[in-house]
Amino acid sequence: MDLGLTDRVQNLVAQVRSMVDTEIAPLDEEYHAEVGKHPSGDRFQLTDRQLDILAELKGKAKERGLWNFWLTDSDKGHGLSTVEYAYLAEEMGKVHLAAEIFNCSAPDTGNMEVLERYGEAWMKERWLTRLLDGEIRSAYVMTEPGVASSDAAQLAFEARKDGDDWVLNGEKYWISGAGDPRCALYILMACTAPDAAKHSRHTMFVMDADTSGIEVLRPMHVFGQDDAPHGHMHLRFTDVRVPSKNIVLGEGRGFEVAQGRLGPGRIHHCMRSIGLAEKALELLCKRGLHREAFGKPLVELGANYDIIANARMEIEQARLLCLKAAWMMDTQGTRAAQPWISQVKVVAPLMSLKVVDEAMQLFGGTGISQDTPLWRMWTHLRTLRFADGPDAVHRRQVARAELRKYTNQ
Amino acid sequence: MDLGLTDRVQNLVAQVRSMVDTEIAPLDEEYHAEVGKHPSGDRFQLTDRQLDILAELKGKAKERGLWNFWLTDSDKGHGLSTVEYAYLAEEMGKVHLAAEIFNCSAPDTGNMEVLERYGEAWMKERWLTRLLDGEIRSAYVMTEPGVASSDAAQLAFEARKDGDDWVLNGEKYWISGAGDPRCALYILMACTAPDAAKHSRHTMFVMDADTSGIEVLRPMHVFGQDDAPHGHMHLRFTDVRVPSKNIVLGEGRGFEVAQGRLGPGRIHHCMRSIGLAEKALELLCKRGLHREAFGKPLVELGANYDIIANARMEIEQARLLCLKAAWMMDTQGTRAAQPWISQVKVVAPLMSLKVVDEAMQLFGGTGISQDTPLWRMWTHLRTLRFADGPDAVHRRQVARAELRKYTNQ
Amino acid sequence: MDLGLTDRVQNLVAQVRSMVDTEIAPLDEEYHAEVGKHPSGDRFQLTDRQLDILAELKGKAKERGLWNFWLTDSDKGHGLSTVEYAYLAEEMGKVHLAAEIFNCSAPDTGNMEVLERYGEAWMKERWLTRLLDGEIRSAYVMTEPGVASSDAAQLAFEARKDGDDWVLNGEKYWISGAGDPRCALYILMACTAPDAAKHSRHTMFVMDADTSGIEVLRPMHVFGQDDAPHGHMHLRFTDVRVPSKNIVLGEGRGFEVAQGRLGPGRIHHCMRSIGLAEKALELLCKRGLHREAFGKPLVELGANYDIIANARMEIEQARLLCLKAAWMMDTQGTRAAQPWISQVKVVAPLMSLKVVDEAMQLFGGTGISQDTPLWRMWTHLRTLRFADGPDAVHRRQVARAELRKYTNQ
Amino acid sequence: MDLGLTDRVQNLVAQVRSMVDTEIAPLDEEYHAEVGKHPSGDRFQLTDRQLDILAELKGKAKERGLWNFWLTDSDKGHGLSTVEYAYLAEEMGKVHLAAEIFNCSAPDTGNMEVLERYGEAWMKERWLTRLLDGEIRSAYVMTEPGVASSDAAQLAFEARKDGDDWVLNGEKYWISGAGDPRCALYILMACTAPDAAKHSRHTMFVMDADTSGIEVLRPMHVFGQDDAPHGHMHLRFTDVRVPSKNIVLGEGRGFEVAQGRLGPGRIHHCMRSIGLAEKALELLCKRGLHREAFGKPLVELGANYDIIANARMEIEQARLLCLKAAWMMDTQGTRAAQPWISQVKVVAPLMSLKVVDEAMQLFGGTGISQDTPLWRMWTHLRTLRFADGPDAVHRRQVARAELRKYTNQ
Repeated sequence: MDLGLTDRVQNLVAQVRSMVDTEIAPLDEEYHAEVGKHPSGDRFQLTDRQLDILAELKGKAKERGLWNFWLTDSDKGHGLSTVEYAYLAEEMGKVHLAAEIFNCSAPDTGNMEVLERYGEAWMKERWLTRLLDGEIRSAYVMTEPGVASSDAAQLAFEARKDGDDWVLNGEKYWISGAGDPRCALYILMACTAPDAAKHSRHTMFVMDADTSGIEVLRPMHVFGQDDAPHGHMHLRFTDVRVPSKNIVLGEGRGFEVAQGRLGPGRIHHCMRSIGLAEKALELLCKRGLHREAFGKPLVELGANYDIIANARMEIEQARLLCLKAAWMMDTQGTRAAQPWISQVKVVAPLMSLKVVDEAMQLFGGTGISQDTPLWRMWTHLRTLRFADGPDAVHRRQVARAELRKYTNQ
Repeated sequence: MDLGLTDRVQNLVAQVRSMVDTEIAPLDEEYHAEVGKHPSGDRFQLTDRQLDILAELKGKAKERGLWNFWLTDSDKGHGLSTVEYAYLAEEMGKVHLAAEIFNCSAPDTGNMEVLERYGEAWMKERWLTRLLDGEIRSAYVMTEPGVASSDAAQLAFEARKDGDDWVLNGEKYWISGAGDPRCALYILMACTAPDAAKHSRHTMFVMDADTSGIEVLRPMHVFGQDDAPHGHMHLRFTDVRVPSKNIVLGEGRGFEVAQGRLGPGRIHHCMRSIGLAEKALELLCKRGLHREAFGKPLVELGANYDIIANARMEIEQARLLCLKAAWMMDTQGTRAAQPWISQVKVVAPLMSLKVVDEAMQLFGGTGISQDTPLWRMWTHLRTLRFADGPDAVHRRQVARAELRKYTNQ
Repeated sequence: MDLGLTDRVQNLVAQVRSMVDTEIAPLDEEYHAEVGKHPSGDRFQLTDRQLDILAELKGKAKERGLWNFWLTDSDKGHGLSTVEYAYLAEEMGKVHLAAEIFNCSAPDTGNMEVLERYGEAWMKERWLTRLLDGEIRSAYVMTEPGVASSDAAQLAFEARKDGDDWVLNGEKYWISGAGDPRCALYILMACTAPDAAKHSRHTMFVMDADTSGIEVLRPMHVFGQDDAPHGHMHLRFTDVRVPSKNIVLGEGRGFEVAQGRLGPGRIHHCMRSIGLAEKALELLCKRGLHREAFGKPLVELGANYDIIANARMEIEQARLLCLKAAWMMDTQGTRAAQPWISQVKVVAPLMSLKVVDEAMQLFGGTGISQDTPLWRMWTHLRTLRFADGPDAVHRRQVARAELRKYTNQ
Repeated sequence: MDLGLTDRVQNLVAQVRSMVDTEIAPLDEEYHAEVGKHPSGDRFQLTDRQLDILAELKGKAKERGLWNFWLTDSDKGHGLSTVEYAYLAEEMGKVHLAAEIFNCSAPDTGNMEVLERYGEAWMKERWLTRLLDGEIRSAYVMTEPGVASSDAAQLAFEARKDGDDWVLNGEKYWISGAGDPRCALYILMACTAPDAAKHSRHTMFVMDADTSGIEVLRPMHVFGQDDAPHGHMHLRFTDVRVPSKNIVLGEGRGFEVAQGRLGPGRIHHCMRSIGLAEKALELLCKRGLHREAFGKPLVELGANYDIIANARMEIEQARLLCLKAAWMMDTQGTRAAQPWISQVKVVAPLMSLKVVDEAMQLFGGTGISQDTPLWRMWTHLRTLRFADGPDAVHRRQVARAELRKYTNQ
C-alpha cells in the first residue's frame, strides 16, 4: 500500500505548486474582482479580462504538460494513479481558480469520465475532445427541487418517449457551472420509467446546453453568493426534445452511470479540501506568530497551541484516509473502495471546515471579511457536506459495510 | 433567583411575538430585497419603500407601547429588569428587522446607555432624545485595523489636544451601522495618552457622524455580504476636530465607559441568538417531519432524534445561563455579573451556530440557499464569536474568576 | 420560576456542607478502608468500626434535624420543594458516604416514596417507619440479565399465582444495596401477565429480603469493584412465595409504580453528580495552581484556562437545567416535567464525567490512583449513563417531546 | 511510503491472530482469575497455574518463531520494519496477556532496546540474553511522587558519588512490572548533577532488582486495581549502592537514553491500543445486531449507525497515522519522526477510549461489569493518556514543530 509521492509526481507537484503560488494566485483575486463588470451588467458573462486570464494561464499549463492529470489509469493523460493525482489535487485546492487552469475542475472531470467510459464515438467527438482541450465546459444535471437528493430514486424529472425523441419536462436546480457561458454540455438524469424497479427508473442523457426549451430561472445562492460566472443554476425544461441516441449506456441505466461517475469525483473534492485546510492552517500560524495581544504573539495565548496541534493531527489523518481510499480505487476498483470513499467524504470536509473555522476565529473580524480568503473557503467547504451525498448517507454506508462483516458470516 | 416570565412580561412577549410573526416577518424579506434598488444604485441609501416599511412598523410598535424595552431599571421605559427584557429579546432575535422596529437594536441601545449613564445634559438633548424616539441611528467607533481587539489597550487611533479642540487622526473599521444614512452619532474611543497606565490611555468622544474629515473607505464584508444599508464601515479620520466638551465622563476614562457599555450589550446579543436557535430548531423539526427519503420522514433517519434532543438540551441550558447572567446584573451589578456575562457570551453563540448548522445540514442545499433564512442566521451568529470580545478572551475571564476562589484565600 | 436558594435552605445547606466537610469526609476514607476487614473475611459484612461510624454520624445528623430532606412536599420531613432539595443533594454528592448519613441515599429514597405514595398501611408500618428512621435499608429489584433494560416491557422474571400466593422464579441483577446485611426490603417488579398489553404485564411486589428461596449468585462489578458492602447483586429466585397482599397498587400496575418512582430519583442522581463535578473542578484548580512544570504553575500551561472555563460553563448550565427540571416537578408534576428530567439525566452525568476526566488528566497518574477520589467519582458517574435509562432512551424522549409541538397541531 | 502488509508479515499476522484467538484468549481469563490465589495470599506472587500458563504459551510461541518481533531493523529477530511490527502489535493488543507471550511487552521491549543500543557487553550478558529469552522481566524506574512527569528535568531522585559507587536515595512510583517476582532488572534515572544544564542533570543506571536497600511501599492503583502480579509499584531507595560501571552511556546522559527509549515504546502502545479499539468495535457490532429493544436490533435504534461509522472512520485514520509514524521512524529515524510519534500518541489512546466507551454504553451495565473485557480496556487505555508524556505535552510538541515551519524561514 504505497501512499507516498512517487518520483514522477514529486516533480509534477513541484511544478503545479509553483505555478499555483506564483502565477495563478496573483490573478485569482483579479479574476474574481472582475465578476459583474461585463458591459451588459450580467454577472454570468465573462469579461474580456477574465477570458484573457483564463487563456493565458490555461495556455501555460497546457504548454508545460500540466493538464488533465485526473485522467487516471488512462493512455490519454499522464497515466497517473488516483494516489498520485491526490497529491496534485491537494495543491490545486489551495487557490480557487487553480483546478480549472489545469483542466481538472468539477463538474467537467466527472462528465469527461462519463463520456470516456460510457459514451459513444459521436458523443466523444462532439464533446469530449473539446472538454479535454479545455475549450468548453459542462454541467451535470441531477438535483431537483422538492426531492431529498440523498434518496436519488425519488428523482421525478420526467422524460417521455415521443417517436425517436424523448421529451423532457420539469425543473432541476443546483446545476453547478450552468451559469458559465462556455458551458456547452449537459449530462442529465431523468425519470423514464417511474414504475420500474428502484434503480432502473432513470436514464442519463447528454445534450447541448443550448437545446431549445431550457430556461434559467435563477442562480441558487450559497451563503448569499451567486458564485458567478460559474453559478449553481435553477433550470426549467419545457418540452425539451432530445434524440434517443443521446442516451448514455442505455435506457434505465442512469443509476449505473451516476454511480460510476461519483466515486472519483468525491475523492477529488476531498483531496482539494485537504489543500484548503493546509492553506488555512498556514494562514493561522503566520497570523498567530505575527499578531500580538497582551504583549505576546497570539499563538502563545489561550488554547492556540492545542488548536494548531489538533489541526495538524486531523489534517494528517484525513490525508492518509484519502490516500487509502484512492489506493483502494486504484487497486480494487470503485465498488470495493466505496466504504473508504464514504469515510473520507465525511471526514475531509468536516475536518477542513474545523480548521478554517479556527483560522477565522484567530483572525477575528478580518477572518470573515474580504481581507482573507477564509470565508470563501468556509462556504465552499460547507457545500461539500451535502454535495454528492450528505454526511448522514455516507455514515449509513460505512456502518452497513461494518455490520456486514458480522451478518454475512 | 426568579428567572421566569413575570405576568407583565408574559403579556408583552405575546404582543411582541405576534407582531414579529404577523407584521414584521412578512415585510422583513421585502425590506432586504430592496437593498441596492435606490435610484442612485447606492446600496447604502434606503429606498422609499424601505423608509415606508420602517415608518409603518416603528409607528405601530410605538403606538402600542412596544418600544425601548431595553431601558431596564429606568423610569423612562417599561422599567423592566434585564431578566424580563431577556424574554423579549429572544422574540426579537427571530427576525432580522425586529429589534430595530421596537427600538431595541445594537449599537443604538448601548450608545443610548452611554448617553443616559455618562452623558451631559447637552449630549442627551442633542442625541439621546432623538435616539429614544427612533429618529436617528448611531455607531460605536472602536475597532482598528492592525490591532487585536481582544487587547483593547493596544488601540492606537490618535486624538491630540489643540487648543480647546481635539484633533483625531487614524482609521477605524467594522463600524456597524455607519453605513446607514440615518446614522447621526458616533461614540468613538481614541488614544489620548499613549504613555499613561494601560487603562487610562483612552478617551471616549461623542460627535456628529457628518463631522468634517471623516471618510468611508469601504464596507467590510461578512462572508461576502456588505450588510447594506446598515453596513460595517471602514473609516478614515483626517484632522477631524472635536471640541473638548464632547468627551464623555472625562479624559482617560474611555475604558470605564466601554466596560459599562459592554455588559448589557453582550447579554442582548446572547438573548437574540437564543431566539435564532429556537427558530432554526423549529425549521429543522418541520422539515424533518415533512420531507421523506427512503420511505420515511427525515427525522426518523440517521441520528436526527439525537440531533434534535441535543439541540433542545443545549438551547435550554444556554437560555437559563443567559437568564442567570441577567439576574446577576439586575441584583448585583454589571461588575459582579461579569463572569456570567463572559460565560454566556461564549456559550450562546456557539450553541446557536451548532443548531443552525444542523438545520442547514438537514435541509441540504436548500439550507444554505436564499430559500431559507438559515445562512444569514449562521453568518450573523458567526460574527458574535468575535464581537464584544472573542471567545478566547471570555474563557480567560471565566477561568481567572474561577481560580481567584482559591488564590484569594 | 424561582430557582434560587431560599433562606431556610441556605441555612440547611450551610449545616450540611459543614458536616460533610468536617465530620463525614474525614471518616469516609476510614469507612471504605474497613471493607474486607470483617473477621469472616466477607466483604459484605460491616465491621464494628463501620457500624460505629454510621451510628455516630447518622445520630448527629438526626439530632440536628438534618434528616430525610428528600421528603419533598410532605408533612413528615422539612417540607422542602424539589428545588430546595437540589441544593442539599449537591452538597451530599461531594462525599461518597454523605447521602446515607442524612438518610437521603438511593435506592432507599425511591423505595420510601413508593411505600409513602402507593403502599398500604401495613407496608408502611412494617418497612417505611424503619426506613425513615434509617434503621434498615432496601433494594429495588428490576433489572434482568438477558433483557435490554431500556425497554422495560421485555422484563420476563416470572410471578405465577398459586392460591393466595404468588410464586417467583428467575434472575435479577445489578440489585444495588442488596449486598448490605442491613438491607431488609425488596421492591420487585415481576411479569404477571406476559400476554397483556405492554404496560400491564408487570406487577410490583414488596417483600422481606430474607424471604426463603432467594440466593445471591455474585456481586456485579463496576470497573472491577464490588462496591462492598453496598454491592450490586446478581440474585436467583427459586419458587419464592409472596402473599397477594404484598402487591403494590394492584396487579398489572407495575409500570405505573416504576414511573412514579423514577422521576425524583433521576433528579437526585443528577443533583449529586453536579456536586461531584464541583468537587473535581476544585481539585483541578488547586492542583493546577500549586503544581509546576517548565517553571510555571500547570494552570498557565496548555489549554488549562480553557479547560477550567469550559468546566465552569458546563457545570453552571447543568445545574440550572437540573433546577428547572426540579421546578417543573414542583409546579407541574412528574409527568409534565418528564422531558426536562430526561434532558438533565443526559446532561448532568456527561458533564460531570467530562469535568472529572479533565481533573484526572491534570493530575496525571495520581488522578487515577488511590491518592485522589477522582477515579471513584468517574466510575460511579459512568454508571449513571445507564442507570434509570440509558442516554439514548432519554434523548429519544426529548426528541419526541420536541416533535410533538409540530405534530399535535 | 508503503504502509501495507508485506507478504512475510501477512503470514506472521495470521499466525499471531490465530494463536491469540484460539490459544491465548481462552487462558487469559483463567490467568487473571488466579490472581490472589497464591498460598501466601500475596497477590504479587504467581501461582503454579499462572506459571504453567505462561510457560506453555511462551513455549509454543518461541517454538513457532513468533518471538521478539519488536526487534526491528535488527539481525537478532525477524528483521521487521516498524511498519511491519505495527500490524503484529495490533493483534497482540486485543488480549491482555498476548504481548508477553510473544516477548513483546512493555516495559521489557524498551528496556531491551536500551541494553541493545547503549549497553556494555557485560550488561547484555547479564540481562539482555535472559530478557530476550523471556526468562526474566524488568522495570523502568523514572517517575517520582511530587514531580510533574511532563517536565522530566524536575526529577530529583538523588544519586551521589561515593568512591567508585553511587549511592541512591529517594522515592520512585508507578514502576510498572516491579510487582512481578520475575522482575530482575531495573533501569533507573537519577539526578546526578542538580546544578547542571537542564538535559545533563540525569544519569541512567542499570541494576539488579534485588539490590539491597530497595523497599516496595505499596502498589499504585489504577481505578482501584493493583494490576497484580505486574503491578505499578511505589518504591523507596535508602542508601542503595550501585557501582559506576552500571551507568548506561555515561554520566549526565540520562535524557539521551530516555529519549531513545521512548520513541518506539510510544508507537507500540498506540499500535496495541488500535487493536483494542478494533476488538471493542467488534463487540459493539455483535451486541448491537443480536440484542433487541422495542422490537428492533439495537443497531437500528438511536444514533448507533453513526456511532459505528464514526468509530470505523476514527480507527482507520488512527491506524494510518500510526503506520506513517512507524514509517518515519524506519526511514528517517526517531528524531525526525518525533512530531508524528507525538501526534499518534495523542490520537490513538483518545480514539480507542471513545470507541470502548461507546461499546460500554451500548452494552449497558454489562459493559462495565466483569462480564465483558471492556472496563479493563478502558482503564488500561486511560493510563496511556499520561504514560510516556501526557497529551498536553505532545500537543505542545506538535504545535511547535508546526510553527517552526514559519519561524525557521
